[in-house]
Amino acid sequence: MHVICQKDELLTGVNTVLKAVSTRTTLPILQCILLDVYEDEFKLIGNDLELGIESNLKATIIKPGSIAIDARIFSEIVKKLPNSEVHIKVDEHQLMNITCEKSEFNIPGQSSNEFIQLPQITKKNPLVIKQSILKEMIHQTIFSIAIEEIRPILTGELFEIKNNNLNIVSVDGYRVSIRQKELAKQFEDITVIIPGKTLAEIQKILDSDEENEVAIYFTDKHVLFEMNSSIIVSRLLEGDFPKYDQIFSTDYETLIKVDRKSILSSIERAALIARESKKSPVKFQIENSLLTISSNTDLGKVHEEIDIKKEGNELEIAFNPKYLIDALRVIEDNEIQLIFTSSLNPCIIKDPIKESYKYLILPIRLN
Amino acid sequence: MHVICQKDELLTGVNTVLKAVSTRTTLPILQCILLDVYEDEFKLIGNDLELGIESNLKATIIKPGSIAIDARIFSEIVKKLPNSEVHIKVDEHQLMNITCEKSEFNIPGQSSNEFIQLPQITKKNPLVIKQSILKEMIHQTIFSIAIEEIRPILTGELFEIKNNNLNIVSVDGYRVSIRQKELAKQFEDITVIIPGKTLAEIQKILDSDEENEVAIYFTDKHVLFEMNSSIIVSRLLEGDFPKYDQIFSTDYETLIKVDRKSILSSIERAALIARESKKSPVKFQIENSLLTISSNTDLGKVHEEIDIKKEGNELEIAFNPKYLIDALRVIEDNEIQLIFTSSLNPCIIKDPIKESYKYLILPIRLN
Repeated sequence: MHVICQKDELLTGVNTVLKAVSTRTTLPILQCILLDVYEDEFKLIGNDLELGIESNLKATIIKPGSIAIDARIFSEIVKKLPNSEVHIKVDEHQLMNITCEKSEFNIPGQSSNEFIQLPQITKKNPLVIKQSILKEMIHQTIFSIAIEEIRPILTGELFEIKNNNLNIVSVDGYRVSIRQKELAKQFEDITVIIPGKTLAEIQKILDSDEENEVAIYFTDKHVLFEMNSSIIVSRLLEGDFPKYDQIFSTDYETLIKVDRKSILSSIERAALIARESKKSPVKFQIENSLLTISSNTDLGKVHEEIDIKKEGNELEIAFNPKYLIDALRVIEDNEIQLIFTSSLNPCIIKDPIKESYKYLILPIRLN
Repeated sequence: MHVICQKDELLTGVNTVLKAVSTRTTLPILQCILLDVYEDEFKLIGNDLELGIESNLKATIIKPGSIAIDARIFSEIVKKLPNSEVHIKVDEHQLMNITCEKSEFNIPGQSSNEFIQLPQITKKNPLVIKQSILKEMIHQTIFSIAIEEIRPILTGELFEIKNNNLNIVSVDGYRVSIRQKELAKQFEDITVIIPGKTLAEIQKILDSDEENEVAIYFTDKHVLFEMNSSIIVSRLLEGDFPKYDQIFSTDYETLIKVDRKSILSSIERAALIARESKKSPVKFQIENSLLTISSNTDLGKVHEEIDIKKEGNELEIAFNPKYLIDALRVIEDNEIQLIFTSSLNPCIIKDPIKESYKYLILPIRLN
């Protein structure tokens, strides 16, 4: 094998596939990157068995071949090389020779036969959307996946296509986050659950650029994302996702409109006092045109007042401040709408016009 | 006590004194900041008994008084307050009331009598130098203080005034770093050892601005730095500092001139291979106009070539790459000079003209 590639191109590729390389594993081959050189293609692949990433690099191919190389040492070497042409050669003893200007490394690799290839997925009928939109939809929902694996299904996000809308949903038992996007083209109904780890890595690779698109291919067991010069394959989580849409009531007893940044800052301050003990929530008191947020613990007392527009009844209700903060930080609207039915029922924060986002947060019972 | 202060002013002051507040201590009062309000002054003080910092704030004073308040919660509250006027009041039960716009906190404090005041130091005859220069001198030497406290004296830096020069010196048993600066005015000879922790914190507070000055006052047990609106008092380390100047020989057998960034990059790459086992150093081979840097370990082999200008003999010598990297990263010259006598004697890197910096690094014996 012998391939020539610019250092920057190589580094971008290595950093991309590195996201799918295990750092803690008992199987050393999972700590490797595969370098695969064909007649007209140079590919890097990382695969931790749950998530696989393949990156295609611009390169001059002298001689095809392939090798699996320790990802950590290879990525560190590439990072430190001069900004110039990098020659990578592999001999019959799986010894990799890297030269760049007056710098030369010889690193032992492993046979590419040991490497576990990505699952083969037939690419047909993709869902195509803008990368910036998918990036935003993941960002605005991923914070409320479950961390603990008591119900593994909740450590992923639901990707649901229904009535020509893409819904991305996360549920952790205390809250529900939903982002909805109308699709430009007709697409068949689909329901899959994608692991949170996959989405967190995809979010980093997705471009914020307005125009670039990503193609998504679904199978029974896997999902494949194709974008820029990369392919990301992830296994799906199996099981039934909670029926989230039944818990969003449209009736309300109290509705408030409030400036998002003001209420966020007030809750963040109140959380300084509330956070120490989980049993000390922040309390909301809604009266006329005033929302009072307060907390009282061993650390001290806090009292915050915020101007609101209110419809319906007065209300006293309490929350774990973290859940409100997480949602309020990712919403982009300046004025938001909070809906309540009683002090024992969830608060719903939703886009008043397009319903493009909906957040549901369970209250904490007041003593 | 009642004082009014802008949030920004308060936050800057809190962040400054926070550097002298203990985070791990069995004495709760050491986790506090003292707020001290006189007729015409508002001071914040942090003191961990080794290092003390006092910051004077612009404020409107309504009623003098003082209180010790938990530094962590107070600093977090101040950080999150709106950008506006902050009122701080303390009642007779040591309860602190903080209001800012529509936000109000009540936090229990402790009597200021509990707080351990800074040592009283008579301010006379200061050494006055530019903050930017002191900041640079600390930055360029502090990396080679000893970390382990086998010889506590080596965890500090020598501040020595001799022949109208200020020398700052650190020694960790494997290397010596020296920065020298000629003083603008005559100053008496002084030798003190300042704890590394003090200098690390002072380095952060010192201004990079060209013009601002710092005044340094020395006593038998303490040193006091006065700058901007802050005072920093530190105890000194007691004991004899190694006689560093005798080990710098001016004779040499080999002298090379080399581009600093080129040699630094090459050593950083070689360190990727060498670092795993301390017994595998990087090897220098100096021949004619070429320096070859190499290393050979379980991880692989590296070979680097760098153009040099050589005077004197050929040489083979080996080093722990970290020690060279640390020094080469802080030097600002583009072309540097390395001096050797033999493969068993230290390498000296020094400013060829003004001797404003000198680094000495012990070699590793080659097998």
